[in-house]
Amino acid sequence: MDSNWILQRLQEQQAYLEIPSVAGNPAAVTQAVAWISARFQSLGATQAVQWTEKGGNPVIFAEFAGNSARTVLFYNHYDVQPANLLSEWRSDPFKPKFTADYLIGRGVADDKGDLLSRLTVLEYWQNHGGLPVKVKFMVEGEEEIGSPHVASYVQAHQKELAADLCIWEGGNRDEADNFEIICGAKGVVSFQAQVQTAAQDLHSSLACYADNAAWRLLQALNSLRSTTGEIQVDGFFEGVQALTPAEEATVQAMEFDPITVRKNYGLWRPLMTKNPKEVLINGPTLNISALTAGDARASLKTVVPSQARALLDCRLVPGQDPHHVVQLVARQLERNGYGDVEIQYLQGEAAGRSDLNDPQIQLSYQIAQQIYGQQKVRIILNMAGGGPVTPFLKQLKLPLVMIGVRSAESKIHAPNENLRLQAYQQATVYLSTYLETLARL
Amino acid sequence: MDSNWILQRLQEQQAYLEIPSVAGNPAAVTQAVAWISARFQSLGATQAVQWTEKGGNPVIFAEFAGNSARTVLFYNHYDVQPANLLSEWRSDPFKPKFTADYLIGRGVADDKGDLLSRLTVLEYWQNHGGLPVKVKFMVEGEEEIGSPHVASYVQAHQKELAADLCIWEGGNRDEADNFEIICGAKGVVSFQAQVQTAAQDLHSSLACYADNAAWRLLQALNSLRSTTGEIQVDGFFEGVQALTPAEEATVQAMEFDPITVRKNYGLWRPLMTKNPKEVLINGPTLNISALTAGDARASLKTVVPSQARALLDCRLVPGQDPHHVVQLVARQLERNGYGDVEIQYLQGEAAGRSDLNDPQIQLSYQIAQQIYGQQKVRIILNMAGGGPVTPFLKQLKLPLVMIGVRSAESKIHAPNENLRLQAYQQATVYLSTYLETLARL
Repeated sequence: MDSNWILQRLQEQQAYLEIPSVAGNPAAVTQAVAWISARFQSLGATQAVQWTEKGGNPVIFAEFAGNSARTVLFYNHYDVQPANLLSEWRSDPFKPKFTADYLIGRGVADDKGDLLSRLTVLEYWQNHGGLPVKVKFMVEGEEEIGSPHVASYVQAHQKELAADLCIWEGGNRDEADNFEIICGAKGVVSFQAQVQTAAQDLHSSLACYADNAAWRLLQALNSLRSTTGEIQVDGFFEGVQALTPAEEATVQAMEFDPITVRKNYGLWRPLMTKNPKEVLINGPTLNISALTAGDARASLKTVVPSQARALLDCRLVPGQDPHHVVQLVARQLERNGYGDVEIQYLQGEAAGRSDLNDPQIQLSYQIAQQIYGQQKVRIILNMAGGGPVTPFLKQLKLPLVMIGVRSAESKIHAPNENLRLQAYQQATVYLSTYLETLARL
Repeated sequence: MDSNWILQRLQEQQAYLEIPSVAGNPAAVTQAVAWISARFQSLGATQAVQWTEKGGNPVIFAEFAGNSARTVLFYNHYDVQPANLLSEWRSDPFKPKFTADYLIGRGVADDKGDLLSRLTVLEYWQNHGGLPVKVKFMVEGEEEIGSPHVASYVQAHQKELAADLCIWEGGNRDEADNFEIICGAKGVVSFQAQVQTAAQDLHSSLACYADNAAWRLLQALNSLRSTTGEIQVDGFFEGVQALTPAEEATVQAMEFDPITVRKNYGLWRPLMTKNPKEVLINGPTLNISALTAGDARASLKTVVPSQARALLDCRLVPGQDPHHVVQLVARQLERNGYGDVEIQYLQGEAAGRSDLNDPQIQLSYQIAQQIYGQQKVRIILNMAGGGPVTPFLKQLKLPLVMIGVRSAESKIHAPNENLRLQAYQQATVYLSTYLETLARL
C-alpha cells in the first residue's frame, strides 16, 4: 500500500473535513451524514442505513462483505468539538491545511482522520480482490457531547452489530512516538453537590452569625479528601482490582516522563502522585470540575451566598459502579455531618477493558511490532478518559482495540488540531495489514 | 409639629422619589441633583453647590444659617439601589405608592425618606422663626456603590464641612419597634484569593495526577477556619478591644430573638455563634462572598480547572486595619502551605464609633426616650454593616449618630422597599425636637 496514494486519497476526501459537524449544528450534521453514506455506498456497502428511532443525531450503520467469516465492527463519530478560541487557530479550522508534515483542522484527529483512514483501507481492498474480513461501521454524531444515545442503539441493534472484534477510534502515538494499542476505557460519573443555607443571599454584615453556603460546601467537599489529596470516602476503592502481573507489565512499559508531562500540559504544581502510570490506568479520581457561589464578577458585592454548587466527576476503574460511587460520596458527606449537601447523579458509565488474551488483540500487537518496530508498541489497558465502550464490551461481548491515526502532538479538542501525515500513513498501512492477517487468524 | 402636615409634605415632595437615581444612571443623577439643589435653595440655603472636582457623581453641599452657634452636618445620599427582581415588586418601584400605613417604592427608606424628613424639619423651622442650629448637608450619589469618592471630598472640603455633630442616614426601628440610635459602623475589607495550577484547564482524566485549582483553593481557604467556623488567622483579633461595661450594657439591651431572626432572614442553618449580639457589634468576620472555578453551567464538561477564585470580605471592628487584615490572611495561607494562592486587596474601610460620652449623643438618647418612650430606645455602638463614616469620625473629628425614618420591615435593597408612615412621622418630630434641644445644650 503506497504512502503517496494514502496521502492523495486523504487530500481527495477533504470535503469531509470541511463540514463543521459539531453535534449541535443540524445542517452540518445532515451534510456529514450524507457525505459518509454516499462514501459507504460508493465503496460497495451491502447496506448503509441511518438509525434515528432512538433520538439524537443519526447513527450511520454500514456493512461490507468480506472474503473470510471474521467480522470487524468499526466505531467512529462524525461530530467534532466546536472550533472555539478562534483567535488561536493559525488557519481556518474548517479549511483543512496541508503543510509538509501535517494536516491542520478541527476534527482531523478526533475523529475524522480515523474514518478517512479506514475508508482508504476499504478502497484499497475493494481494488485488490475484496475485503479480507467482513466489515461493519457504526458512526455516531454525539460523541463529543457524551454519546447519550449509543447504549440505546446498541441495545436495539445487537444483531446487526454482531462481530468478532470492535476497532474503536482514537489510538495514539505516545510522547516517545510509541504506537499505542488501547484496550479499554475508564468509566466516568458526573454528579452535582449543592447546598443551601438561607432562603436568599444575605448582606455580608450577617456573616457574623449566619452560615454561608460557600463555606459550608467547601468544608463538606474538603472532608472527602486528605490534605494531600487521598480520597477519604468509605468503600470508594472496594471492588477495585489489583492489576495482574501481565497487566502490571503493560503499565510499567508505558512512557511517562513527569518533566515532559508537566511541560506539555503546563502543570504549575507538582504531580499529586508518585505512581502516575498506575493511576492513569487503575486509579479512580474525585475531581471538582466547577465551583460556583455568589457572583464572582461583582467584586465589591459583599453577600453571604445562600447557595453553593459544585460539579464533580469520578473517573472509574473496573469494579466500580457509577451509581454506587455517587451513593458512597453522599453517605460519607452525611457521616461527616454534611447531610444538608444535596448530591445529584448526572451521568455515568462504567469502565471496561478487553481481555488481553484474546488472539485478535494479541495479533494487533504483533502486527504493530512489525510495522512500527519491536520496541515501539505499547499496550494500554484502558485510556485514562472515557467513552461509550461498555455496550460494546459488555452487551455485544466484543474485544475492543483503539488503534488510529493520532499522535501526541495532535491537540485534540484544542486550537490547531492536527494529524502528523506520517502517523496517518503508517496507521493506514497498519490497519490494512491487521485486517489482512485477522482473516487468516 | 403636626403629623398630618408631615405626611402632606411627604406626599407633596414625592417627585424626588420618582427619580430612578441609581448611581449608574447619569440622566437620573442629574435630575436628582437638580431637584435637591432647587429644594435647598427654596428653603433658604446660604449656599448650595455641587462638588465634582474629585470625580464621581456630584456631591451636593448646602449650608443654612441657624439661631445658635452649634452646627449639625447631615450626611445623605441621593443614589438608590437598582430596582431589580421587578416581578417581585407589587407596585412600580419609581411610582411611590401610599397605602393606609406605608409608602412603597425604591429608595423611600434608603435613603430618600431620610432626606425628605430632614427637609421637612428645615421647612418647619424656617416657618417658625428660623433653624435652631446651623445646618450643613453633604449629599452624595455613590453610596450604593461603595462611596468611592467621599473620603476625597471630605479631605478637600474640611473647612466647609466643619461642624459639631454629624447626623448620618439610616437609623432604624428594631424588630421590637425600639428606636435605634446607631453611633458608628463596622469596617469592611474586600479581597480576592486566586490560584492557578496549570496553564489551561485539563481533561479530567488527568485528575489522577494533576492538581486542581478548585481543590487547592478550597483547601487553602478551609485552612483559615476551624470546622466550627472560628477564624484561624494569626494576629486577626489583635487590636480588637473588649467592650467597656457601658458599651457591653448597650449590647445586652439590644433586641435579638434567634427564632425571629432565623425566620426573617430565612436562615436554614443554626446560628454560627452563641453570642449573636456581641458579634454583630464587635465580631470581625471572614466571609466568602463568591466562589468560581470551571464552568458551572456545563454540567457534563469534565475538566480539571486550572484557575479558581474567591471573593472574600471581612467586616472589621475598631482596632483592625483593612490592609493589615488582608496581609495577615496572606501570611497565614503561606504558613499553611498555600503560598501559591494570590491575595489581592480590593477595597477597605476601617470601623469607627462615636464617643458615647459626647453630650450631643447623650442628648439624642434622652430626647428619643421622651418621644419614643423610656424603654423604647436602644443605643447601638455601630451598625453591623459599613459606610463611609471614617472620614467624618477621624478627619472631621465629629461625633456621629445615625437616626432616621426606617423600621425593621423597610426591606432596603429588596423588592417592595417601604416606609412605615408612622415611623416616618415620629422620626421627623424627633429630629425637630432634637435640633431644638441641641441649640440649648
